[in-house]
Amino acid sequence: MIETTLTWKERFTFLTELDNHEFVLDVSKEGGGDDRGPRPKGLLLSALGACTGMDVVSILEKMKFKDFKFQLKVSADTEDTHPMVFKKAVLSYIFEGESLKPDSIKKAVSLSKDKYCAVSAMLQKAFEIEVKIILNGEEI
Amino acid sequence: MIETTLTWKERFTFLTELDNHEFVLDVSKEGGGDDRGPRPKGLLLSALGACTGMDVVSILEKMKFKDFKFQLKVSADTEDTHPMVFKKAVLSYIFEGESLKPDSIKKAVSLSKDKYCAVSAMLQKAFEIEVKIILNGEEI
Repeated sequence: MIETTLTWKERFTFLTELDNHEFVLDVSKEGGGDDRGPRPKGLLLSALGACTGMDVVSILEKMKFKDFKFQLKVSADTEDTHPMVFKKAVLSYIFEGESLKPDSIKKAVSLSKDKYCAVSAMLQKAFEIEVKIILNGEEI
Repeated sequence: MIETTLTWKERFTFLTELDNHEFVLDVSKEGGGDDRGPRPKGLLLSALGACTGMDVVSILEKMKFKDFKFQLKVSADTEDTHPMVFKKAVLSYIFEGESLKPDSIKKAVSLSKDKYCAVSAMLQKAFEIEVKIILNGEEI
Protein backbone atom coordinates (compact mmCIF):
# COMPACT_ATOMS: atom_id res chain seq x y z
CA MET A 1 0.00 0.00 0.00
CA ILE A 2 1.15 3.52 -0.81
CA GLU A 3 0.24 6.32 1.60
CA THR A 4 0.87 10.05 1.63
CA THR A 5 0.11 12.57 4.40
CA LEU A 6 -0.54 16.27 3.81
CA THR A 7 -0.50 18.69 6.73
CA TRP A 8 -2.03 22.12 6.29
CA LYS A 9 0.41 24.79 7.49
CA GLU A 10 -1.21 28.14 6.61
CA ARG A 11 -3.12 29.76 3.75
CA PHE A 12 -2.71 27.25 0.88
CA THR A 13 0.56 25.66 2.00
CA PHE A 14 0.59 21.91 2.55
CA LEU A 15 3.59 20.01 3.91
CA THR A 16 3.51 16.69 2.11
CA GLU A 17 5.09 13.41 3.19
CA LEU A 18 5.56 10.58 0.70
CA ASP A 19 7.97 7.62 0.84
CA ASN A 20 9.70 9.23 3.85
CA HIS A 21 10.46 12.39 1.86
CA GLU A 22 8.93 15.80 2.58
CA PHE A 23 8.04 18.55 0.14
CA VAL A 24 5.76 21.56 0.05
CA LEU A 25 2.84 22.18 -2.31
CA ASP A 26 1.32 25.62 -2.63
CA VAL A 27 -0.73 27.96 -4.79
CA SER A 28 0.97 30.56 -7.03
CA LYS A 29 1.16 34.19 -5.93
CA GLU A 30 -1.06 35.15 -8.88
CA GLY A 31 -3.57 32.60 -7.58
CA GLY A 32 -3.52 34.10 -4.09
CA GLY A 33 -0.96 31.74 -2.57
CA ASP A 34 2.64 32.04 -1.42
CA ASP A 35 4.40 29.88 -4.06
CA ARG A 36 6.35 27.94 -1.43
CA GLY A 37 6.20 24.89 -3.70
CA PRO A 38 4.69 23.73 -6.98
CA ARG A 39 0.97 23.35 -7.73
CA PRO A 40 -0.66 19.92 -7.39
CA LYS A 41 -2.09 19.69 -10.92
CA GLY A 42 1.29 19.85 -12.63
CA LEU A 43 2.53 17.09 -10.33
CA LEU A 44 0.52 14.64 -12.43
CA LEU A 45 2.73 15.55 -15.38
CA SER A 46 5.93 15.28 -13.30
CA ALA A 47 4.80 11.85 -12.07
CA LEU A 48 4.13 10.78 -15.66
CA GLY A 49 7.55 11.93 -16.86
CA ALA A 50 9.44 10.29 -13.99
CA CYS A 51 7.49 7.02 -14.20
CA THR A 52 8.12 6.48 -17.89
CA GLY A 53 11.62 8.00 -17.67
CA MET A 54 12.63 5.43 -15.02
CA ASP A 55 11.26 2.61 -17.20
CA VAL A 56 13.14 3.85 -20.24
CA VAL A 57 16.55 4.21 -18.54
CA SER A 58 16.08 0.77 -17.01
CA ILE A 59 15.28 -0.80 -20.40
CA LEU A 60 18.08 1.05 -22.21
CA GLU A 61 20.52 -0.08 -19.51
CA LYS A 62 19.43 -3.69 -20.06
CA MET A 63 20.07 -3.11 -23.78
CA LYS A 64 23.65 -2.07 -22.77
CA PHE A 65 23.40 1.55 -23.93
CA LYS A 66 25.68 3.94 -22.05
CA ASP A 67 26.96 7.50 -22.25
CA PHE A 68 23.80 9.32 -23.25
CA LYS A 69 21.82 12.27 -21.93
CA PHE A 70 18.09 12.09 -21.37
CA GLN A 71 15.45 14.67 -20.53
CA LEU A 72 11.67 14.63 -20.60
CA LYS A 73 9.30 17.53 -21.06
CA VAL A 74 5.62 17.07 -20.32
CA SER A 75 3.13 19.83 -21.07
CA ALA A 76 -0.64 20.07 -21.04
CA ASP A 77 -3.38 22.54 -21.84
CA THR A 78 -6.28 22.81 -19.43
CA GLU A 79 -9.96 23.37 -19.98
CA ASP A 80 -11.18 26.93 -19.33
CA THR A 81 -14.03 25.93 -17.04
CA HIS A 82 -14.05 24.15 -13.68
CA PRO A 83 -12.73 21.63 -12.83
CA MET A 84 -10.13 22.73 -15.42
CA VAL A 85 -8.90 19.24 -16.27
CA PHE A 86 -6.19 18.62 -18.87
CA LYS A 87 -7.37 18.55 -22.47
CA LYS A 88 -4.30 16.77 -23.79
CA ALA A 89 -0.69 16.23 -22.75
CA VAL A 90 2.43 16.16 -24.89
CA LEU A 91 5.16 13.89 -23.53
CA SER A 92 8.56 14.48 -25.15
CA TYR A 93 11.49 12.11 -24.67
CA ILE A 94 14.70 13.99 -25.54
CA PHE A 95 17.89 11.94 -25.99
CA GLU A 96 21.43 12.95 -26.83
CA GLY A 97 24.04 10.32 -27.58
CA GLU A 98 25.82 8.96 -30.63
CA SER A 99 25.52 5.29 -29.63
CA LEU A 100 21.73 5.28 -29.22
CA LYS A 101 19.68 3.50 -31.87
CA PRO A 102 16.27 4.91 -32.87
CA ASP A 103 14.53 1.51 -32.97
CA SER A 104 15.82 0.61 -29.51
CA ILE A 105 14.58 3.88 -28.08
CA LYS A 106 11.17 3.43 -29.68
CA LYS A 107 10.96 -0.08 -28.25
CA ALA A 108 11.86 1.15 -24.75
CA VAL A 109 9.24 3.91 -24.93
CA SER A 110 6.58 1.48 -26.18
CA LEU A 111 7.32 -1.06 -23.45
CA SER A 112 6.92 1.66 -20.83
CA LYS A 113 3.67 2.97 -22.33
CA ASP A 114 2.03 -0.36 -23.03
CA LYS A 115 3.31 -2.57 -20.23
CA TYR A 116 5.16 -1.04 -17.29
CA CYS A 117 4.28 2.56 -16.48
CA ALA A 118 1.41 2.66 -14.00
CA VAL A 119 1.11 6.44 -14.10
CA SER A 120 0.74 6.42 -17.89
CA ALA A 121 -1.82 3.61 -17.71
CA MET A 122 -3.90 5.59 -15.21
CA LEU A 123 -3.61 9.09 -16.69
CA GLN A 124 -4.43 8.02 -20.24
CA LYS A 125 -7.89 7.15 -18.93
CA ALA A 126 -8.32 10.83 -18.09
CA PHE A 127 -6.72 12.61 -21.07
CA GLU A 128 -4.90 11.94 -24.32
CA ILE A 129 -1.11 11.66 -24.11
CA GLU A 130 0.76 12.44 -27.33
CA VAL A 131 4.29 11.03 -27.43
CA LYS A 132 7.28 12.64 -29.18
CA ILE A 133 10.78 11.16 -29.29
CA ILE A 134 13.72 13.39 -30.14
CA LEU A 135 17.22 11.98 -30.72
CA ASN A 136 20.12 14.37 -31.21
CA GLY A 137 17.78 17.22 -32.10
CA GLU A 138 15.60 15.36 -34.59
CA GLU A 139 12.20 13.77 -34.04
CA ILE A 140 12.30 10.05 -34.76
CA MET B 1 -0.23 25.68 -20.36
CA ILE B 2 1.51 23.71 -17.63
CA GLU B 3 4.97 22.28 -18.32
CA THR B 4 7.41 20.19 -16.32
CA THR B 5 10.98 19.18 -17.21
CA LEU B 6 12.71 16.07 -15.89
CA THR B 7 16.47 15.68 -16.27
CA TRP B 8 18.01 12.26 -15.81
CA LYS B 9 20.97 12.49 -13.42
CA GLU B 10 22.12 8.90 -12.86
CA ARG B 11 20.64 5.44 -12.26
CA PHE B 12 16.92 6.19 -11.59
CA THR B 13 17.31 9.73 -10.27
CA PHE B 14 15.41 12.49 -12.07
CA LEU B 15 15.74 16.18 -11.20
CA THR B 16 12.29 17.60 -11.76
CA GLU B 17 11.34 21.22 -12.44
CA LEU B 18 7.75 22.36 -12.03
CA ASP B 19 6.39 25.88 -11.47
CA ASN B 20 9.97 27.14 -10.94
CA HIS B 21 10.52 24.66 -8.09
CA GLU B 22 12.92 21.74 -8.20
CA PHE B 23 12.61 18.35 -6.55
CA VAL B 24 14.06 14.88 -7.03
CA LEU B 25 12.17 11.70 -7.86
CA ASP B 26 13.82 8.32 -7.47
CA VAL B 27 13.30 4.59 -7.02
CA SER B 28 13.44 2.99 -3.54
CA LYS B 29 16.57 1.14 -2.42
CA GLU B 30 14.55 -2.09 -2.30
CA GLY B 31 13.59 -1.41 -5.92
CA GLY B 32 17.22 -0.93 -6.96
CA GLY B 33 17.33 2.86 -6.71
CA ASP B 34 18.95 5.36 -4.37
CA ASP B 35 15.85 6.79 -2.63
CA ARG B 36 16.95 10.39 -3.22
CA GLY B 37 13.30 11.39 -3.51
CA PRO B 38 9.82 9.87 -3.54
CA ARG B 39 8.44 7.51 -6.19
CA PRO B 40 6.33 8.93 -9.04
CA LYS B 41 3.26 6.74 -8.52
CA GLY B 42 2.56 8.03 -5.02
CA LEU B 43 2.81 11.60 -6.32
CA LEU B 44 -0.63 11.10 -7.85
CA LEU B 45 -1.99 10.64 -4.33
CA SER B 46 -0.07 13.67 -3.00
CA ALA B 47 -1.42 15.76 -5.88
CA LEU B 48 -4.95 14.58 -5.11
CA GLY B 49 -4.64 15.44 -1.41
CA ALA B 50 -3.16 18.88 -2.04
CA CYS B 51 -5.64 19.77 -4.76
CA THR B 52 -8.72 19.01 -2.72
CA GLY B 53 -7.07 20.26 0.49
CA MET B 54 -6.47 23.68 -1.07
CA ASP B 55 -10.09 23.80 -2.23
CA VAL B 56 -11.39 22.90 1.21
CA VAL B 57 -9.32 25.46 3.14
CA SER B 58 -10.37 28.11 0.62
CA ILE B 59 -14.07 27.25 1.01
CA LEU B 60 -13.89 27.02 4.81
CA GLU B 61 -12.14 30.39 4.91
CA LYS B 62 -14.98 31.91 2.84
CA MET B 63 -17.38 30.36 5.39
CA LYS B 64 -15.41 32.31 8.08
CA PHE B 65 -14.10 29.24 9.94
CA LYS B 66 -10.83 29.85 11.79
CA ASP B 67 -8.58 28.18 14.32
CA PHE B 68 -8.69 24.59 13.13
CA LYS B 69 -6.15 21.95 12.20
CA PHE B 70 -6.40 19.99 8.98
CA GLN B 71 -4.56 16.99 7.61
CA LEU B 72 -5.22 14.63 4.71
CA LYS B 73 -4.14 11.04 4.29
CA VAL B 74 -4.42 9.37 0.92
CA SER B 75 -3.67 5.69 0.51
CA ALA B 76 -4.08 3.20 -2.30
CA ASP B 77 -3.57 -0.48 -3.00
CA THR B 78 -2.01 -1.45 -6.29
CA GLU B 79 -2.64 -4.34 -8.63
CA ASP B 80 -0.12 -7.20 -8.40
CA THR B 81 0.60 -7.35 -12.13
CA HIS B 82 2.08 -4.79 -14.52
CA PRO B 83 1.38 -1.94 -14.96
CA MET B 84 0.45 -2.14 -11.26
CA VAL B 85 -2.18 0.60 -11.32
CA PHE B 86 -4.15 1.62 -8.24
CA LYS B 87 -7.14 -0.55 -7.43
CA LYS B 88 -8.79 2.00 -5.17
CA ALA B 89 -7.76 5.02 -3.11
CA VAL B 90 -9.00 6.13 0.32
CA LEU B 91 -8.93 9.89 0.81
CA SER B 92 -9.29 10.93 4.46
CA TYR B 93 -9.94 14.53 5.51
CA ILE B 94 -8.97 14.90 9.18
CA PHE B 95 -10.08 18.06 11.00
CA GLU B 96 -9.58 19.25 14.55
CA GLY B 97 -11.39 22.30 15.83
CA GLU B 98 -14.30 23.05 18.15
CA SER B 99 -15.84 25.72 15.91
CA LEU B 100 -16.12 23.56 12.76
CA LYS B 101 -19.59 22.38 11.76
CA PRO B 102 -19.99 18.90 10.18
CA ASP B 103 -22.44 20.06 7.52
CA SER B 104 -20.14 22.89 6.45
CA ILE B 105 -17.19 20.52 6.16
CA LYS B 106 -19.25 18.06 4.11
CA LYS B 107 -20.33 20.86 1.80
CA ALA B 108 -16.74 22.04 1.30
CA VAL B 109 -15.58 18.49 0.51
CA SER B 110 -18.47 17.96 -1.93
CA LEU B 111 -17.80 21.25 -3.73
CA SER B 112 -14.17 20.25 -4.21
CA LYS B 113 -15.02 16.76 -5.44
CA ASP B 114 -17.89 17.69 -7.73
CA LYS B 115 -16.88 21.12 -9.02
CA TYR B 116 -13.38 22.43 -8.40
CA CYS B 117 -10.66 19.81 -7.99
CA ALA B 118 -9.12 19.00 -11.37
CA VAL B 119 -6.90 16.24 -9.97
CA SER B 120 -9.88 14.47 -8.43
CA ALA B 121 -11.89 14.82 -11.65
CA MET B 122 -9.05 13.25 -13.65
CA LEU B 123 -7.99 10.49 -11.26
CA GLN B 124 -11.50 9.23 -10.60
CA LYS B 125 -11.57 8.20 -14.25
CA ALA B 126 -8.70 5.82 -13.47
CA PHE B 127 -9.65 4.40 -10.06
CA GLU B 128 -12.28 4.62 -7.35
CA ILE B 129 -11.71 7.24 -4.65
CA GLU B 130 -13.42 6.56 -1.32
CA VAL B 131 -13.83 9.65 0.86
CA LYS B 132 -13.74 9.70 4.67
CA ILE B 133 -14.20 12.80 6.81
CA ILE B 134 -13.04 12.79 10.43
CA LEU B 135 -13.83 15.66 12.80
CA ASN B 136 -12.26 15.66 16.28
CA GLY B 137 -11.55 11.94 16.07
CA GLU B 138 -14.96 10.81 14.84
CA GLU B 139 -16.04 9.99 11.31
CA ILE B 140 -18.88 12.25 10.20
